Amino acid sequence: MPPIENITTLRVRYSETDQMGGFYNSRVLEWFECGRTEITRKLGVPYSEMETRGLFLPLVETHIEFVGRARYDDELRMTTRVAMFGRARVRFEHEIVHAANGAAVARGYTLHACLGPDGKLIRPPAWFVALMGL
Amino acid sequence: MPPIENITTLRVRYSETDQMGGFYNSRVLEWFECGRTEITRKLGVPYSEMETRGLFLPLVETHIEFVGRARYDDELRMTTRVAMFGRARVRFEHEIVHAANGAAVARGYTLHACLGPDGKLIRPPAWFVALMGL
Amino acid sequence: MPPIENITTLRVRYSETDQMGGFYNSRVLEWFECGRTEITRKLGVPYSEMETRGLFLPLVETHIEFVGRARYDDELRMTTRVAMFGRARVRFEHEIVHAANGAAVARGYTLHACLGPDGKLIRPPAWFVALMGL
Amino acid sequence: MPPIENITTLRVRYSETDQMGGFYNSRVLEWFECGRTEITRKLGVPYSEMETRGLFLPLVETHIEFVGRARYDDELRMTTRVAMFGRARVRFEHEIVHAANGAAVARGYTLHACLGPDGKLIRPPAWFVALMGL
Repeated sequence: MPPIENITTLRVRYSETDQMGGFYNSRVLEWFECGRTEITRKLGVPYSEMETRGLFLPLVETHIEFVGRARYDDELRMTTRVAMFGRARVRFEHEIVHAANGAAVARGYTLHACLGPDGKLIRPPAWFVALMGL
Repeated sequence: MPPIENITTLRVRYSETDQMGGFYNSRVLEWFECGRTEITRKLGVPYSEMETRGLFLPLVETHIEFVGRARYDDELRMTTRVAMFGRARVRFEHEIVHAANGAAVARGYTLHACLGPDGKLIRPPAWFVALMGL
Repeated sequence: MPPIENITTLRVRYSETDQMGGFYNSRVLEWFECGRTEITRKLGVPYSEMETRGLFLPLVETHIEFVGRARYDDELRMTTRVAMFGRARVRFEHEIVHAANGAAVARGYTLHACLGPDGKLIRPPAWFVALMGL
Repeated sequence: MPPIENITTLRVRYSETDQMGGFYNSRVLEWFECGRTEITRKLGVPYSEMETRGLFLPLVETHIEFVGRARYDDELRMTTRVAMFGRARVRFEHEIVHAANGAAVARGYTLHACLGPDGKLIRPPAWFVALMGL
Protein backbone atom coordinates (compact mmCIF):
# COMPACT_ATOMS: atom_id res chain seq x y z
CA MET A 1 0.00 0.00 0.00
CA PRO A 2 1.22 3.52 -0.71
CA PRO A 3 2.00 5.58 2.34
CA ILE A 4 -0.76 7.72 3.82
CA GLU A 5 -0.28 11.39 3.03
CA ASN A 6 -1.39 14.75 4.36
CA ILE A 7 -0.66 18.34 3.41
CA THR A 8 -0.67 21.26 5.80
CA THR A 9 0.50 24.86 5.68
CA LEU A 10 2.27 27.13 8.12
CA ARG A 11 3.97 30.50 8.18
CA VAL A 12 7.51 31.11 9.40
CA ARG A 13 7.23 32.86 12.76
CA TYR A 14 9.46 35.75 13.76
CA SER A 15 10.63 33.69 16.73
CA GLU A 16 11.81 31.03 14.28
CA THR A 17 14.21 33.30 12.42
CA ASP A 18 17.87 33.74 13.28
CA GLN A 19 20.44 36.42 12.58
CA MET A 20 21.26 34.93 9.17
CA GLY A 21 17.81 36.16 8.11
CA GLY A 22 16.07 32.85 7.44
CA PHE A 23 14.57 30.25 9.79
CA TYR A 24 16.80 28.61 12.37
CA ASN A 25 17.55 24.98 11.49
CA SER A 26 16.00 23.28 14.53
CA ARG A 27 12.56 24.72 13.68
CA VAL A 28 12.29 22.17 10.90
CA LEU A 29 11.99 19.40 13.48
CA GLU A 30 9.21 21.39 15.18
CA TRP A 31 7.42 21.84 11.84
CA PHE A 32 7.80 18.13 11.07
CA GLU A 33 6.06 17.51 14.41
CA CYS A 34 3.16 19.73 13.31
CA GLY A 35 2.89 17.59 10.19
CA ARG A 36 2.73 14.43 12.31
CA THR A 37 0.06 15.98 14.49
CA GLU A 38 -2.08 16.81 11.49
CA ILE A 39 -1.69 13.49 9.70
CA THR A 40 -2.71 11.57 12.81
CA ARG A 41 -5.72 13.86 13.18
CA LYS A 42 -6.64 13.12 9.57
CA LEU A 43 -6.25 9.39 10.22
CA GLY A 44 -8.85 9.71 12.97
CA VAL A 45 -6.73 9.39 16.10
CA PRO A 46 -4.81 12.59 16.83
CA TYR A 47 -1.42 11.98 18.41
CA SER A 48 -2.68 13.67 21.58
CA GLU A 49 -5.20 10.85 21.91
CA MET A 50 -2.57 8.21 21.13
CA GLU A 51 -0.67 9.30 24.24
CA THR A 52 -3.92 9.20 26.22
CA ARG A 53 -4.37 5.62 25.00
CA GLY A 54 -0.86 4.83 26.24
CA LEU A 55 1.11 4.88 23.00
CA PHE A 56 4.14 7.17 22.80
CA LEU A 57 6.18 7.70 19.62
CA PRO A 58 9.48 9.36 20.55
CA LEU A 59 11.88 10.26 17.79
CA VAL A 60 14.81 7.85 17.55
CA GLU A 61 16.44 8.92 14.29
CA THR A 62 16.15 11.71 11.78
CA HIS A 63 17.78 12.82 8.57
CA ILE A 64 17.15 16.28 7.18
CA GLU A 65 18.30 18.11 4.08
CA PHE A 66 18.02 21.89 4.04
CA VAL A 67 17.68 22.72 0.39
CA GLY A 68 16.33 26.25 0.23
CA ARG A 69 15.78 29.36 2.25
CA ALA A 70 12.59 30.64 3.78
CA ARG A 71 12.02 33.95 5.52
CA TYR A 72 9.79 35.33 8.22
CA ASP A 73 6.11 35.21 7.25
CA ASP A 74 6.73 33.05 4.19
CA GLU A 75 3.92 30.56 3.77
CA LEU A 76 5.17 26.99 3.59
CA ARG A 77 3.41 23.83 2.45
CA MET A 78 4.38 20.63 4.21
CA THR A 79 3.65 17.12 2.95
CA THR A 80 3.75 14.32 5.50
CA ARG A 81 3.68 10.59 4.75
CA VAL A 82 3.62 7.80 7.28
CA ALA A 83 4.19 4.06 7.18
CA MET A 84 5.23 1.28 9.53
CA PHE A 85 8.96 0.59 9.45
CA GLY A 86 9.35 -3.07 10.21
CA ARG A 87 7.01 -4.30 12.92
CA ALA A 88 7.77 -1.94 15.76
CA ARG A 89 8.72 1.42 14.36
CA VAL A 90 6.97 4.18 12.46
CA ARG A 91 8.57 6.28 9.76
CA PHE A 92 7.36 9.69 8.69
CA GLU A 93 8.57 11.41 5.53
CA HIS A 94 8.33 15.19 5.48
CA GLU A 95 8.77 17.68 2.68
CA ILE A 96 8.49 21.44 2.98
CA VAL A 97 8.17 23.79 0.02
CA HIS A 98 7.14 27.40 -0.50
CA ALA A 99 3.38 27.60 -0.89
CA ALA A 100 3.75 30.39 -3.43
CA ASN A 101 5.91 28.60 -5.99
CA GLY A 102 6.69 25.10 -4.79
CA ALA A 103 10.39 25.86 -4.31
CA ALA A 104 11.94 23.30 -1.98
CA VAL A 105 12.89 24.31 1.57
CA ALA A 106 13.62 21.12 3.51
CA ARG A 107 12.89 17.42 3.46
CA GLY A 108 13.69 14.46 5.63
CA TYR A 109 12.40 11.57 7.61
CA THR A 110 11.83 10.89 11.27
CA LEU A 111 11.85 7.38 12.70
CA HIS A 112 9.88 6.69 15.87
CA ALA A 113 9.85 3.90 18.43
CA CYS A 114 6.62 2.69 19.99
CA LEU A 115 6.68 3.02 23.77
CA GLY A 116 4.12 2.15 26.40
CA PRO A 117 3.16 4.37 29.33
CA ASP A 118 6.13 3.06 31.33
CA GLY A 119 8.56 4.18 28.63
CA LYS A 120 9.37 0.64 27.48
CA LEU A 121 9.39 -0.56 23.89
CA ILE A 122 6.15 -2.23 22.84
CA ARG A 123 4.75 -3.77 19.70
CA PRO A 124 2.34 -1.24 18.26
CA PRO A 125 -1.24 -1.97 19.33
CA ALA A 126 -3.64 -3.43 16.76
CA TRP A 127 -5.69 -0.22 16.48
CA PHE A 128 -2.52 1.64 15.55
CA VAL A 129 -1.38 -0.86 12.94
CA ALA A 130 -4.85 -0.78 11.39
CA LEU A 131 -4.72 3.03 11.36
CA MET A 132 -1.37 3.00 9.56
CA GLY A 133 -3.06 1.13 6.73
CA LEU A 134 -1.29 -2.21 6.97
CA MET B 1 -10.78 55.84 18.56
CA PRO B 2 -11.09 52.29 19.79
CA PRO B 3 -8.08 50.10 19.25
CA ILE B 4 -7.87 48.07 16.06
CA GLU B 5 -8.55 44.39 16.72
CA ASN B 6 -7.87 41.04 15.08
CA ILE B 7 -8.61 37.45 16.04
CA THR B 8 -6.50 34.48 15.05
CA THR B 9 -6.29 30.84 16.10
CA LEU B 10 -3.45 28.44 16.74
CA ARG B 11 -2.86 25.01 18.20
CA VAL B 12 -0.40 24.24 21.01
CA ARG B 13 2.53 22.43 19.40
CA TYR B 14 4.20 19.44 21.00
CA SER B 15 7.46 21.39 21.00
CA GLU B 16 5.75 24.06 23.09
CA THR B 17 4.86 21.74 25.98
CA ASP B 18 7.04 21.15 29.02
CA GLN B 19 7.30 18.39 31.58
CA MET B 20 4.52 19.94 33.67
CA GLY B 21 2.17 18.85 30.88
CA GLY B 22 0.99 22.25 29.60
CA PHE B 23 2.69 24.85 27.40
CA TYR B 24 5.99 26.34 28.50
CA ASN B 25 5.59 29.95 29.60
CA SER B 26 7.86 31.64 27.04
CA ARG B 27 5.71 30.34 24.17
CA VAL B 28 3.12 32.97 25.03
CA LEU B 29 5.50 35.68 23.83
CA GLU B 30 5.93 33.75 20.59
CA TRP B 31 2.15 33.46 20.18
CA PHE B 32 1.72 37.17 20.92
CA GLU B 33 4.14 37.77 18.05
CA CYS B 34 1.95 35.68 15.75
CA GLY B 35 -0.97 37.89 16.75
CA ARG B 36 1.05 41.00 15.87
CA THR B 37 1.99 39.50 12.52
CA GLU B 38 -1.64 38.83 11.68
CA ILE B 39 -3.03 42.18 12.81
CA THR B 40 -0.46 44.05 10.72
CA ARG B 41 -1.36 41.87 7.74
CA LYS B 42 -5.01 42.73 8.32
CA LEU B 43 -4.14 46.43 8.50
CA GLY B 44 -2.62 46.12 5.05
CA VAL B 45 1.10 46.31 5.80
CA PRO B 46 2.41 43.00 7.20
CA TYR B 47 5.18 43.47 9.75
CA SER B 48 7.57 41.73 7.33
CA GLU B 49 7.01 44.64 4.95
CA MET B 50 7.38 47.20 7.73
CA GLU B 51 10.94 45.97 8.27
CA THR B 52 11.54 46.14 4.51
CA ARG B 53 10.36 49.75 4.66
CA GLY B 54 12.87 50.39 7.43
CA LEU B 55 10.63 50.35 10.51
CA PHE B 56 11.52 47.95 13.32
CA LEU B 57 9.37 47.43 16.40
CA PRO B 58 11.44 45.64 19.04
CA LEU B 59 9.76 44.72 22.30
CA VAL B 60 10.75 47.03 25.15
CA GLU B 61 8.33 45.98 27.89
CA THR B 62 5.79 43.25 28.53
CA HIS B 63 3.41 42.18 31.22
CA ILE B 64 1.76 38.76 31.10
CA GLU B 65 -0.73 36.98 33.31
CA PHE B 66 -0.99 33.21 32.97
CA VAL B 67 -4.53 32.49 34.04
CA GLY B 68 -5.31 29.01 32.79
CA ARG B 69 -3.76 25.87 31.42
CA ALA B 70 -3.63 24.66 27.86
CA ARG B 71 -2.35 21.35 26.60
CA TYR B 72 -0.77 19.97 23.45
CA ASP B 73 -3.06 20.25 20.43
CA ASP B 74 -5.60 22.48 22.24
CA GLU B 75 -6.97 25.07 19.85
CA LEU B 76 -6.51 28.60 21.16
CA ARG B 77 -8.12 31.84 20.06
CA MET B 78 -6.02 34.96 20.35
CA THR B 79 -7.33 38.51 20.23
CA THR B 80 -4.82 41.26 19.42
CA ARG B 81 -5.42 45.01 19.73
CA VAL B 82 -3.01 47.72 18.77
CA ALA B 83 -2.74 51.44 19.44
CA MET B 84 -0.08 54.12 19.57
CA PHE B 85 1.31 54.68 23.06
CA GLY B 86 2.32 58.31 23.21
CA ARG B 87 3.96 59.56 20.05
CA ALA B 88 6.77 57.07 19.59
CA ARG B 89 5.72 53.73 20.92
CA VAL B 90 3.18 51.09 19.97
CA ARG B 91 1.22 49.00 22.44
CA PHE B 92 -0.35 45.66 21.63
CA GLU B 93 -2.86 43.97 23.93
CA HIS B 94 -3.13 40.22 23.63
CA GLU B 95 -5.64 37.78 25.05
CA ILE B 96 -5.60 34.02 24.59
CA VAL B 97 -8.55 31.76 25.38
CA HIS B 98 -9.55 28.20 24.55
CA ALA B 99 -11.36 28.15 21.20
CA ALA B 100 -13.67 25.41 22.45
CA ASN B 101 -15.12 27.18 25.48
CA GLY B 102 -13.59 30.62 25.83
CA ALA B 103 -11.75 29.71 29.04
CA ALA B 104 -8.93 32.17 29.64
CA VAL B 105 -5.33 31.04 29.12
CA ALA B 106 -3.13 34.14 29.14
CA ARG B 107 -3.32 37.88 28.58
CA GLY B 108 -0.92 40.75 28.55
CA TYR B 109 0.53 43.63 26.66
CA THR B 110 3.69 44.24 24.74
CA LEU B 111 5.16 47.71 24.30
CA HIS B 112 7.36 48.39 21.29
CA ALA B 113 9.82 51.11 20.34
CA CYS B 114 10.06 52.42 16.79
CA LEU B 115 13.55 52.00 15.37
CA GLY B 116 15.02 52.88 12.03
CA PRO B 117 17.30 50.62 9.96
CA ASP B 118 20.32 51.77 11.98
CA GLY B 119 18.73 50.64 15.24
CA LYS B 120 18.08 54.16 16.51
CA LEU B 121 14.82 55.47 17.93
CA ILE B 122 12.68 57.27 15.39
CA ARG B 123 9.30 58.96 15.31
CA PRO B 124 6.95 56.53 13.59
CA PRO B 125 6.58 57.38 9.90
CA ALA B 126 3.36 58.97 8.70
CA TRP B 127 2.18 55.87 6.85
CA PHE B 128 2.49 53.91 10.08
CA VAL B 129 0.59 56.42 12.20
CA ALA B 130 -2.17 56.50 9.60
CA LEU B 131 -2.28 52.71 9.63
CA MET B 132 -2.66 52.65 13.43
CA GLY B 133 -5.84 54.66 13.01
CA LEU B 134 -4.81 57.87 14.70
CA MET C 1 15.34 39.50 55.73
CA PRO C 2 16.85 40.53 52.42
CA PRO C 3 16.03 38.32 49.47
CA ILE C 4 18.34 35.41 48.73
CA GLU C 5 20.52 36.08 45.70
CA ASN C 6 22.49 34.13 43.14
CA ILE C 7 24.54 35.09 40.10
CA THR C 8 25.02 32.93 37.04
CA THR C 9 26.37 33.47 33.54
CA LEU C 10 25.30 32.32 30.10
CA ARG C 11 26.09 33.03 26.47
CA VAL C 12 23.52 34.00 23.85
CA ARG C 13 23.03 30.96 21.61
CA TYR C 14 22.73 31.23 17.85
CA SER C 15 19.31 29.60 18.12
CA GLU C 16 18.25 32.46 20.40
CA THR C 17 18.91 35.20 17.86
CA ASP C 18 16.36 36.57 15.42
CA GLN C 19 16.56 38.40 12.13
CA MET C 20 16.87 41.76 13.91
CA GLY C 21 20.34 40.58 14.93
CA GLY C 22 19.94 40.36 18.70
CA PHE C 23 18.25 37.77 20.92
CA TYR C 24 14.56 37.03 20.40
CA ASN C 25 12.45 38.41 23.24
CA SER C 26 10.97 35.15 24.57
CA ARG C 27 14.46 33.80 25.35
CA VAL C 28 14.57 36.09 28.35
CA LEU C 29 11.89 33.99 30.05
CA GLU C 30 13.98 30.88 29.33
CA TRP C 31 17.07 32.55 30.80
CA PHE C 32 15.10 33.66 33.86
CA GLU C 33 14.20 29.97 34.30
CA CYS C 34 17.91 29.08 34.25
CA GLY C 35 18.43 31.62 37.03
CA ARG C 36 15.66 30.00 39.09
CA THR C 37 17.20 26.57 38.53
CA GLU C 38 20.57 27.78 39.77
CA ILE C 39 19.31 29.68 42.82
CA THR C 40 17.32 26.67 44.01
CA ARG C 41 20.40 24.50 43.53
CA LYS C 42 22.39 26.99 45.62
CA LEU C 43 19.69 26.93 48.31
CA GLY C 44 20.19 23.18 48.57
CA VAL C 45 17.06 21.84 46.88
CA PRO C 46 17.27 22.12 43.08
CA TYR C 47 13.92 22.79 41.45
CA SER C 48 14.12 19.38 39.79
CA GLU C 49 13.99 17.86 43.28
CA MET C 50 11.15 20.16 44.36
CA GLU C 51 8.98 18.64 41.62
CA THR C 52 10.05 15.18 42.76
CA ARG C 53 8.91 16.16 46.26
CA GLY C 54 5.57 17.19 44.81
CA LEU C 55 5.93 20.97 44.70
CA PHE C 56 5.36 22.70 41.35
CA LEU C 57 5.92 26.42 40.81
CA PRO C 58 4.24 27.43 37.53
CA LEU C 59 4.58 31.00 36.37
CA VAL C 60 1.42 33.05 36.94
CA GLU C 61 2.60 36.56 36.18
CA THR C 62 5.64 38.28 34.74
CA HIS C 63 6.82 41.74 33.93
CA ILE C 64 9.90 42.30 31.80
CA GLU C 65 11.74 45.38 30.59
CA PHE C 66 14.09 44.99 27.64
CA VAL C 67 16.62 47.73 28.18
CA GLY C 68 19.58 46.85 26.00
CA ARG C 69 20.70 44.68 23.14
CA ALA C 70 22.77 41.52 23.28
CA ARG C 71 24.14 39.56 20.36
CA TYR C 72 25.04 35.97 19.60
CA ASP C 73 27.85 34.68 21.80
CA ASP C 74 27.74 37.69 24.14
CA GLU C 75 28.37 36.60 27.70
CA LEU C 76 25.59 37.68 30.04
CA ARG C 77 25.49 37.84 33.83
CA MET C 78 22.17 37.16 35.48
CA THR C 79 21.28 38.00 39.06
CA THR C 80 18.33 36.16 40.58
CA ARG C 81 16.63 36.98 43.89
CA VAL C 82 13.81 35.06 45.49
CA ALA C 83 11.34 35.75 48.29
CA MET C 84 7.90 34.58 49.37
CA PHE C 85 5.12 36.83 48.10
CA GLY C 86 2.38 36.64 50.66
CA ARG C 87 1.84 33.18 52.08
CA ALA C 88 1.30 31.13 48.97
CA ARG C 89 3.30 32.60 46.14
CA VAL C 90 6.97 32.99 45.31
CA ARG C 91 8.48 35.97 43.55
CA PHE C 92 11.75 35.91 41.67
CA GLU C 93 13.52 39.08 40.54
CA HIS C 94 15.87 38.73 37.59
CA GLU C 95 18.40 41.11 36.13
CA ILE C 96 20.58 40.44 33.09
CA VAL C 97 23.61 42.54 32.17
CA HIS C 98 26.60 42.14 29.87
CA ALA C 99 29.36 40.29 31.70
CA ALA C 100 31.97 42.40 29.95
CA ASN C 101 30.83 45.85 31.07
CA GLY C 102 27.71 45.55 33.20
CA ALA C 103 25.50 47.20 30.57
CA ALA C 104 21.85 46.36 31.24
CA VAL C 105 20.05 43.93 28.93
CA ALA C 106 16.78 42.96 30.64
CA ARG C 107 15.16 42.85 34.04
CA GLY C 108 11.88 41.71 35.45
CA TYR C 109 10.07 39.55 37.90
CA THR C 110 8.24 36.28 37.71
CA LEU C 111 5.51 35.35 40.17
CA HIS C 112 4.80 31.67 40.83
CA ALA C 113 1.95 29.76 42.40
CA CYS C 114 2.58 26.72 44.60
CA LEU C 115 0.85 23.63 43.23
CA GLY C 116 0.72 20.07 44.46
CA PRO C 117 1.14 16.98 42.29
CA ASP C 118 -2.54 17.13 41.29
CA GLY C 119 -2.14 20.65 39.94
CA LYS C 120 -4.10 22.30 42.76
CA LEU C 121 -3.01 25.33 44.76
CA ILE C 122 -1.33 24.45 48.04
CA ARG C 123 0.27 26.30 50.90
CA PRO C 124 3.99 25.96 50.43
CA PRO C 125 5.39 23.11 52.52
CA ALA C 126 7.41 23.92 55.65
CA TRP C 127 10.70 22.79 54.12
CA PHE C 128 10.17 25.22 51.27
CA VAL C 129 9.31 28.18 53.48
CA ALA C 130 12.40 27.47 55.58
CA LEU C 131 14.49 27.31 52.42
CA MET C 132 13.19 30.69 51.26
CA GLY C 133 14.63 32.18 54.42
CA LEU C 134 11.46 33.29 56.16
CA MET D 1 45.06 14.42 10.26
CA PRO D 2 42.59 13.46 12.96
CA PRO D 3 39.62 15.75 13.34
CA ILE D 4 39.90 18.62 15.81
CA GLU D 5 37.90 17.94 18.96
CA ASN D 6 36.36 19.89 21.83
CA ILE D 7 34.31 18.92 24.86
CA THR D 8 31.75 21.14 26.52
CA THR D 9 29.01 20.64 29.11
CA LEU D 10 25.48 21.91 29.46
CA ARG D 11 22.41 21.26 31.56
CA VAL D 12 18.96 20.44 30.18
CA ARG D 13 16.82 23.56 30.64
CA TYR D 14 13.23 23.39 31.79
CA SER D 15 12.21 25.12 28.57
CA GLU D 16 13.81 22.25 26.65
CA THR D 17 11.62 19.54 28.18
CA ASP D 18 8.34 18.33 26.72
CA GLN D 19 5.32 16.56 28.12
CA MET D 20 6.96 13.15 27.64
CA GLY D 21 9.28 14.17 30.50
CA GLY D 22 12.62 14.33 28.67
CA PHE D 23 14.10 16.93 26.32
CA TYR D 24 12.26 17.81 23.13
CA ASN D 25 14.02 16.42 20.06
CA SER D 26 14.78 19.71 18.27
CA ARG D 27 16.88 20.92 21.23
CA VAL D 28 19.63 18.55 20.11
CA LEU D 29 20.23 20.72 17.04
CA GLU D 30 20.48 23.76 19.32
CA TRP D 31 22.97 21.94 21.57
CA PHE D 32 25.00 20.85 18.55
CA GLU D 33 25.19 24.53 17.64
CA CYS D 34 26.59 25.31 21.12
CA GLY D 35 29.25 22.68 20.47
CA ARG D 36 30.15 24.34 17.17
CA THR D 37 30.35 27.72 18.87
CA GLU D 38 32.75 26.38 21.49
CA ILE D 39 35.01 24.44 19.12
CA THR D 40 35.45 27.50 16.88
CA ARG D 41 36.28 29.57 19.96
CA LYS D 42 38.87 26.97 20.93
CA LEU D 43 40.30 27.05 17.42
CA GLY D 44 40.88 30.78 17.86
CA VAL D 45 38.17 32.26 15.66
CA PRO D 46 34.75 32.08 17.29
CA TYR D 47 31.93 31.55 14.82
CA SER D 48 30.59 35.01 15.72
CA GLU D 49 33.80 36.44 14.30
CA MET D 50 33.63 34.22 11.22
CA GLU D 51 30.34 35.89 10.30
CA THR D 52 31.93 39.27 10.92
CA ARG D 53 34.68 38.24 8.51
CA GLY D 54 32.02 37.38 5.95
CA LEU D 55 31.93 33.59 6.22
CA PHE D 56 28.58 31.96 6.94
CA LEU D 57 28.13 28.24 7.59
CA PRO D 58 24.44 27.37 7.28
CA LEU D 59 23.37 23.81 7.95
CA VAL D 60 22.62 21.88 4.76
CA GLU D 61 22.23 18.33 6.05
CA THR D 62 22.02 16.54 9.38
CA HIS D 63 21.59 13.06 10.69
CA ILE D 64 20.78 12.44 14.34
CA GLU D 65 20.28 9.33 16.42
CA PHE D 66 18.48 9.70 19.74
CA VAL D 67 19.83 6.86 21.80
CA GLY D 68 19.00 7.67 25.40
CA ARG D 69 16.87 9.88 27.59
CA ALA D 70 17.88 12.97 29.50
CA ARG D 71 15.79 14.95 31.94
CA TYR D 72 15.55 18.51 33.16
CA ASP D 73 18.71 19.66 34.93
CA ASP D 74 20.72 16.59 33.87
CA GLU D 75 24.28 17.58 33.11
CA LEU D 76 25.35 16.54 29.62
CA ARG D 77 28.81 16.31 28.08
CA MET D 78 29.08 17.06 24.40
CA THR D 79 32.01 16.16 22.16
CA THR D 80 32.36 18.07 18.89
CA ARG D 81 34.71 17.24 16.05
CA VAL D 82 35.18 19.21 12.88
CA ALA D 83 36.80 18.58 9.51
CA MET D 84 36.52 19.80 5.95
CA PHE D 85 34.21 17.70 3.80
CA GLY D 86 35.54 17.91 0.30
CA ARG D 87 36.75 21.36 -0.65
CA ALA D 88 33.74 23.49 0.08
CA ARG D 89 31.86 22.02 2.98
CA VAL D 90 32.47 21.53 6.69
CA ARG D 91 31.31 18.53 8.68
CA PHE D 92 30.83 18.51 12.43
CA GLU D 93 30.35 15.33 14.42
CA HIS D 94 28.55 15.65 17.72
CA GLU D 95 28.08 13.23 20.56
CA ILE D 96 26.14 13.89 23.76
CA VAL D 97 26.38 11.71 26.86
CA HIS D 98 25.41 12.05 30.51
CA ALA D 99 28.23 13.77 32.40
CA ALA D 100 27.54 11.60 35.44
CA ASN D 101 28.00 8.18 33.87
CA GLY D 102 28.78 8.54 30.19
CA ALA D 103 25.46 7.02 29.11
CA ALA D 104 24.71 7.98 25.50
CA VAL D 105 21.99 10.53 24.77
CA ALA D 106 22.34 11.56 21.12
CA ARG D 107 24.86 11.66 18.32
CA GLY D 108 24.94 12.87 14.79
CA TYR D 109 26.60 15.03 12.24
CA THR D 110 25.84 18.37 10.67
CA LEU D 111 27.09 19.35 7.23
CA HIS D 112 27.56 23.03 6.42
CA ALA D 113 27.97 25.01 3.24
CA CYS D 114 30.33 27.97 3.06
CA LEU D 115 28.53 31.15 2.04
CA GLY D 116 29.77 34.67 1.53
CA PRO D 117 28.03 37.82 2.81
CA ASP D 118 25.72 37.81 -0.20
CA GLY D 119 24.47 34.31 0.60
CA LYS D 120 26.25 32.67 -2.31
CA LEU D 121 28.41 29.55 -2.15
CA ILE D 122 32.11 30.29 -1.84
CA ARG D 123 35.31 28.30 -1.52
CA PRO D 124 36.31 28.53 2.14
CA PRO D 125 38.89 31.30 2.67
CA ALA D 126 42.50 30.33 3.33
CA TRP D 127 42.39 31.39 7.00
CA PHE D 128 39.46 29.04 7.53
CA VAL D 129 41.07 26.06 5.82
CA ALA D 130 44.22 26.60 7.88
CA LEU D 131 42.11 26.76 11.02
CA MET D 132 40.43 23.46 10.20
CA GLY D 133 43.85 21.84 10.29
CA LEU D 134 44.25 20.86 6.67
